[in-house]
Parts: sequence; C-alpha cells; structure tokens
Amino acid sequence: MTNPTRIVTLLTDFGLRDHYVAAMKGVMLGVNPDLTFVDISHVIPRHDVYSAAFTLGQAYHHFPPGTIHVAVVDPGVGTSRKALAVAAGGRFFVAPDNGILSYVFSREDGFEPFEVTEEHYFIKPVSSTFHGRDIFAPVAAWISRDVPLRQFGPEFANPVRLDIPTVKRVRGVLVEGGILAADSFGNLITNLVAGDIPAYGEGNEGKCRMVIGKREITSFCKTFQEGAPGELFVIPGSSGYLEIVMRDKSAAEALPLPPGTPVGVIFG
Amino acid sequence: MTNPTRIVTLLTDFGLRDHYVAAMKGVMLGVNPDLTFVDISHVIPRHDVYSAAFTLGQAYHHFPPGTIHVAVVDPGVGTSRKALAVAAGGRFFVAPDNGILSYVFSREDGFEPFEVTEEHYFIKPVSSTFHGRDIFAPVAAWISRDVPLRQFGPEFANPVRLDIPTVKRVRGVLVEGGILAADSFGNLITNLVAGDIPAYGEGNEGKCRMVIGKREITSFCKTFQEGAPGELFVIPGSSGYLEIVMRDKSAAEALPLPPGTPVGVIFG
Amino acid sequence: MTNPTRIVTLLTDFGLRDHYVAAMKGVMLGVNPDLTFVDISHVIPRHDVYSAAFTLGQAYHHFPPGTIHVAVVDPGVGTSRKALAVAAGGRFFVAPDNGILSYVFSREDGFEPFEVTEEHYFIKPVSSTFHGRDIFAPVAAWISRDVPLRQFGPEFANPVRLDIPTVKRVRGVLVEGGILAADSFGNLITNLVAGDIPAYGEGNEGKCRMVIGKREITSFCKTFQEGAPGELFVIPGSSGYLEIVMRDKSAAEALPLPPGTPVGVIFG
Repeated sequence: MTNPTRIVTLLTDFGLRDHYVAAMKGVMLGVNPDLTFVDISHVIPRHDVYSAAFTLGQAYHHFPPGTIHVAVVDPGVGTSRKALAVAAGGRFFVAPDNGILSYVFSREDGFEPFEVTEEHYFIKPVSSTFHGRDIFAPVAAWISRDVPLRQFGPEFANPVRLDIPTVKRVRGVLVEGGILAADSFGNLITNLVAGDIPAYGEGNEGKCRMVIGKREITSFCKTFQEGAPGELFVIPGSSGYLEIVMRDKSAAEALPLPPGTPVGVIFG
Repeated sequence: MTNPTRIVTLLTDFGLRDHYVAAMKGVMLGVNPDLTFVDISHVIPRHDVYSAAFTLGQAYHHFPPGTIHVAVVDPGVGTSRKALAVAAGGRFFVAPDNGILSYVFSREDGFEPFEVTEEHYFIKPVSSTFHGRDIFAPVAAWISRDVPLRQFGPEFANPVRLDIPTVKRVRGVLVEGGILAADSFGNLITNLVAGDIPAYGEGNEGKCRMVIGKREITSFCKTFQEGAPGELFVIPGSSGYLEIVMRDKSAAEALPLPPGTPVGVIFG
Repeated sequence: MTNPTRIVTLLTDFGLRDHYVAAMKGVMLGVNPDLTFVDISHVIPRHDVYSAAFTLGQAYHHFPPGTIHVAVVDPGVGTSRKALAVAAGGRFFVAPDNGILSYVFSREDGFEPFEVTEEHYFIKPVSSTFHGRDIFAPVAAWISRDVPLRQFGPEFANPVRLDIPTVKRVRGVLVEGGILAADSFGNLITNLVAGDIPAYGEGNEGKCRMVIGKREITSFCKTFQEGAPGELFVIPGSSGYLEIVMRDKSAAEALPLPPGTPVGVIFG
C-alpha cells in the first residue's frame, strides 16, 4: 500500500456561498495542520451522484500516489447508507457508499473498501445532515496521519456501483456506447475512444457516422478549429474519450440528452 | 494568548471573477510565503454584512486555535469606520468595525479588540476602495509572523455589534426566536435548538407547532428523508440550530422572509 | 534572475464545475508536491483573452518575486499558436502566445520569453484540447524545481501583444484614453490616472468633464460614499486607474461599452 501524502482533494455539491466546505477544511486542519487542499468542484448539481462520480473519475488519477480524495455528494446522509474509506490505484478515497466511487472501481483493479464505523475518529455529536464535516473530513485527515484504513472499520465487500454505460463492439461493422456526461462547456462526453472507429484510423481514415437520438453526425475532427461553425462534430477530448461538440456553442443545448443516452457509430 | 498558526481564512464579497482576492493573497505571501489559505466564501451578497457575520460565525470555530480569519465585507471602506484586529476564542480576526464579527463576540467571552492604526504595516499608498489588500491582508500576514495585536494600534472598547435575534423562553409554554440566515440550499436557519422544544424531547416527544409569518409548521423531523415531499418541516441542522427545510426544494423560496423574522414555537 | 518560489497562481476560463483545474493541479503536484496554489480566476468569460490579460495584469505584481503564474485562456489550443515560458519583473509566466501576457510585457522592461518546445517536460500523449494539463501545468511545476527557462526551448523574439488603449495628453487642454475592462461590480476601469486631470489636482481642484460614448460625467469623487445615488461618477480605483462607477449599481449596465472604448477628459 502507498503511503498517504498531505494532499487532500474535495468534491462536493455544497456550493461556494456557505460555510460548509470551510468547516470541513477547518476540521481537517485541526487533525493535521500541514494539509494541502485542492478543490475538485463544489458546484456539482445538488445530489447528482452520477455527475460527481464522473468528475472524480476524470480528476483523481492526475494526482500523485498517496493523495486522499474526499467526495461528498450525499443525498442519503442521515439514513442507513454506509461510509467508506477505500484504497485504490495507490490513492485513498473517503465517501458515502452511494456509487460516487464507481469510476474509480471500474478503473482500478484490486481496490480495498472499508466501512467507516469507528466513532472514535468522528466529530461528536455527529449531526444527521453533515457527515462531510463530522465523519468524512476527520477520517481523511487521520488517513494523512498514517492511520491504516482497517482502523476505521471492517472490510466491506460490495460497495454500490452506478450503472455506467459500457461499450459493445462488432468489429468492422459498428460500435455502441453511451453519453457519460456533459461538461460545463456543453461538450457531450461519450465512452468511445478514437481507436474504436474508422474515422480516426491511421493512414486510411474510413467513413462512418455517429447516431445519437434522432441525429446523425458525420464530421469527425481532431481539433475544435477544424469544425464548421454551427455544426455538431466529434473530436477526441482531453480524457481520451470522443466528445460531441460545437465551436463556441453548447452541444448539450443543441442535443439535450441525459447521461446514459446510447451513442452508436456505424461504419462504412 | 494562543500563538498564531500559518493558517489564514478569507471571507469577502469580492466574487470569483476579478483579481481582488488574489491580490490580497499575493500581498500576504509577500509578508509570509508559508501561509495556508482557506477560502470561507467570496460570494457573500455584496455589502451584506449580516450574512457575512453569520457565515463567519458558523465557520471560524471549526479551525484550530491560532487560525487567522480575515473578513472583508466593507461597504464603509474609505469612510471613517475603524479597522480591527481581535483575539477571541484562541483565534485571530482582522476585519472592518462594522459588525461582521458579531457572532464571534457573542460566542466568545473575553475577546480583545484593537484598532488598527499603525500605517507601518500597510501597503502604501492606501487606496480609498480596497483596504482588503492594503490594510487587512498585510496585518493578517504580520500576525502570522508573531506581531502582537497591540503593535497595530490601541485597545478598542466598543466594536460595532449587529442586532442578532435572541431567544425568549417561557418554560412549558412557548419559545420565541428568529431567523438567522438562509443558506444556499434555501434552508432557513433559526436560533432555536432542539432542546428548546417538546418535539425533540427524549422519550416523550411532545406536541408543538412553529409559527413563522402567517404559516404554521407542525412536522418536526430528524433527517431530510423523514420529511414529506412538498412540505415545510423542521430538522436540527448541522450548526445545532433548528432549520426550516423542504426536501429537494428551497424553503426560503416558499417562505421568503428576511433574517431577523421572528419564529415562535407554541407548546401543546 | 530571481529564483522561483513554490507559489503557483492559476488563471483560466475553465469554470468551477468540471475537473479541468484540478487536473492541472494534480499534474503539478506530481512534479512538485510542495506547491502552494493561488487561484486568480477560473471564470474569465470563455476565450476572452483580453479580459484574462487585464486580470493577470492587475494581480501578478502583488505576488512575491519568484512566483510562477500560469494563465490558460486558449482559444487557439490545438492550432499552431506557440506556448511560452517568460521571465518578467522577477516573476515567471507560462501561457499560450496569444496576448494574454500583454499587460506584463507593457509593465516590465527586459522581459525574456522562451518558446516551450521540449516535449520531455510534457504529459504524454499531449491532447489537442487541453494544453493546460499537458504542457502549461508541468512546465510551471518544473520551473518551481529550478529548471531554467532556456531548457524548455529557444528564445522567442516577438510574442503576441494585444492592442491595449494608450493615453494621449495635451497638457492643460485634454487627455484621451480608453476603457480597459469592467470588473464584476460593473465598475468601468479606464487607463487614466488621477494625476492626469485637474479634478484631482492638489489644492486647486480644477473643473473638467469626462466624455465617453454620448455621455458626459462631471462628478469626480474620492470614495464611493461621496457619489450621489443613481449617478455615474469617477473615483480613483484600487489599481490606481480612474474608474467610472455608480453607488450600489453597475456602471457597466448603465454604460454598456466594450473595452477599448475611448474616454476623453476635457479641461476647464
């Protein structure tokens, strides 16, 4: 197991106006004053675990091994949902057991989840509405002080996993995937990669068309600048995934389809 | 007196787009490059000292002793309002004398306020519009370098205090308080606590009703999940105070009442 | 040349919702885990290089020498626009060559720009859409680890400079300048200074009027509090520049004129 660093990231839907995020950081600094915080996002749409899971999945692996990621989008706070501390891919994760770690689980073999039950590490009294401050924050800070995950509670066999779209490939004929998310620029991020489709083939770029909802997209570019204004087109995005985009406009407004919407590419 | 740490929090109404907050941090790093910054909020509604005071009051005590809190919501900048450096509850506070520290003063006995007058510590020339950068930031950074508060100016007897709602209790009959604030989720935070009212009594939950504006609320829950959709109900919030909330909606929109609005609970 | 510090500022148009800014910080912490980050802004209007340049120009000189400033508002990403690493005024700058450093160049004599070409320092594969993560972030982090700028590529003679309004003075008669920017309070920031015009003369305040678009402004104040409600007036702003403002309203809404709009002051 990698040793923890003093780097802690935060991902919440608490917004930027209230004191909630600061309260979490204050609690953590009380346990370990040497922490370095990085905010991944605090403006995840409220209670949108799906969006939070995607955002965490895109961010965490850019951080050095030993980073501690705290993710609290937690519509089930105060109910019987579990709290988790997980080691995966050399990083640490502290989060409610509601699927917010789904992209981590799907990317990292051999992840080790523990249920967080040891109240010794909590801020007391534990409120029924703010486990971010009372449970997740102090546990993350204690991890940074080398408390092993097994100290927080028992191993936990089956954490919740969201239904993330998968890719079906019929070689030489078609590939089927889905929309994972729209980013704040309105780019629709699919789970397909350039290697999946003939349009991005080396040397012999083949014809193909992308089918989504009732629309067909036939323009496959490498950069934003290659696309025609006012047109939906496809580019390989910064995550490696193909994205449906428009130049200086929101593709998500032109194509208002939710995450999970199927995307097909038909060859020839 | 506690020793200062290198932790500095910031609370302003400067927003997130302009360079103003960064200018403050740059000035502080010039005095002490080892500071750790935590942003409490920079999107306090412009000039809303009442809201700033509440937010600071909810956040500061979660930070470790020795933390330096800089709070600049300052409609009187450029006028004769004073600048303060205060020791209270083991923390340090740097702020205009406009009531923004009211919750700190009401929570901490034996606070020690000093007027900040020693221009030696200021960035010169001092602008008439940005004391955050020119006065409050450098003073905070010098505190982190162990300059005693009395170095910044004379003791100051009577800092401004806002009119914060108080609680009146008629045992066994009723309790009267007020709305302190609405958070960005639209939860209306009162100054009443669960121990005040029969609904949250241990073992023998008693009947009562909350009266606010022209509305009566009779649903007292422990978590969000217990409330019925579309209904206003009460829960003990994360600050310890009772909050008027709705599930997945904004109670503040359903009940658009300003801070200071009286809230009564009638027993039986 | 000043030695680099571990302080890195970030200025982007990536917004606050997505993982993009965090990905940059994660990459940098992988190169140097001891960095201290300061966000200047991430809500620059998308692709608005002019606004980004102004904001950076207002912020950077408040930071201590050796600070590393990363500015990524980059509509040309994926095209042939160059990447720059620049030493100027004792600070370091990493940015696309699109004019975003114009205010730095106009303020600092003897700036030294290098083209960033050494792929050795990049995150590979370099995406065509996110050089912030793949080029600018790692180069900034390597600067903090004392890699000299010339290691990143060759000297670069003529970086792009935006057309920033200049000031023409006809002594005793008039001065002509322009609008540099509107801040998020709606203050219109000009490139004129108090010393330019009789209204702010020491002792013998002279008469003058400011002409902008079809409007004349004749109220020259020193603080916000001196202005009449509902009136456009002028004050010396916190940058030293004269600003056209209103009390508790947005001057930019009352006077919706773009950066670059001429502003004249006629004496007498």
